[in-house]
Amino acid sequence: MRRRCKLSSSLIVWVGASSAQELRDMIGRLNHVAIAVSDLTQAMKTYRETLGAEVSDPVPQPDHGVTTVFITLPNTKIELIAPLGEGSPISNFLARHPDGGIHHVCYEVSDIK
Amino acid sequence: MRRRCKLSSSLIVWVGASSAQELRDMIGRLNHVAIAVSDLTQAMKTYRETLGAEVSDPVPQPDHGVTTVFITLPNTKIELIAPLGEGSPISNFLARHPDGGIHHVCYEVSDIK
Repeated sequence: MRRRCKLSSSLIVWVGASSAQELRDMIGRLNHVAIAVSDLTQAMKTYRETLGAEVSDPVPQPDHGVTTVFITLPNTKIELIAPLGEGSPISNFLARHPDGGIHHVCYEVSDIK
Repeated sequence: MRRRCKLSSSLIVWVGASSAQELRDMIGRLNHVAIAVSDLTQAMKTYRETLGAEVSDPVPQPDHGVTTVFITLPNTKIELIAPLGEGSPISNFLARHPDGGIHHVCYEVSDIK
């Protein structure tokens, strides 16, 4: 069982179930890079048709105020995130970056103290 | 032999030597995520001492106006970039983001037409 922890505006980590690990040596794989986009359909098309990438179906995440799409690369994933509903947490980011942009990176860790 | 191609403010690709590949199916591994920082020493310390990561020595890149440090993760790399000299190409970015931020991602591709 893992849970998602947001440490700052651009650092999110996944915390594993083990509890005995020191904070040192905690950083692991890059789970994904999240890219905020205004036009999810166009972004999916670019990755699928122009770059030939493996692109998932969109998944609405109403609890998080975003719709997500995952791009599978050989060694990690890109997460496209688009606003969903009123007051999405990425609305302000997209207001500052209307063409979209890299929103956060997500590192895997075994534990957080 | 590979060369570095910057496609936009946040998309850089490494182009391989093969030339027969279509643009489709071109996207490959995530080579690195570049994070611009004002204080390279502090950033290196955070990754090395707090997160226990493998952190390279700094390498001045006068032709690019930056000093680079690579963080080796199990599946990809983080590239810390700090301004070097006058008129560094990341100075404006750091003026807008004084605490640093994710600057670009670098995908590997076999060819660009």
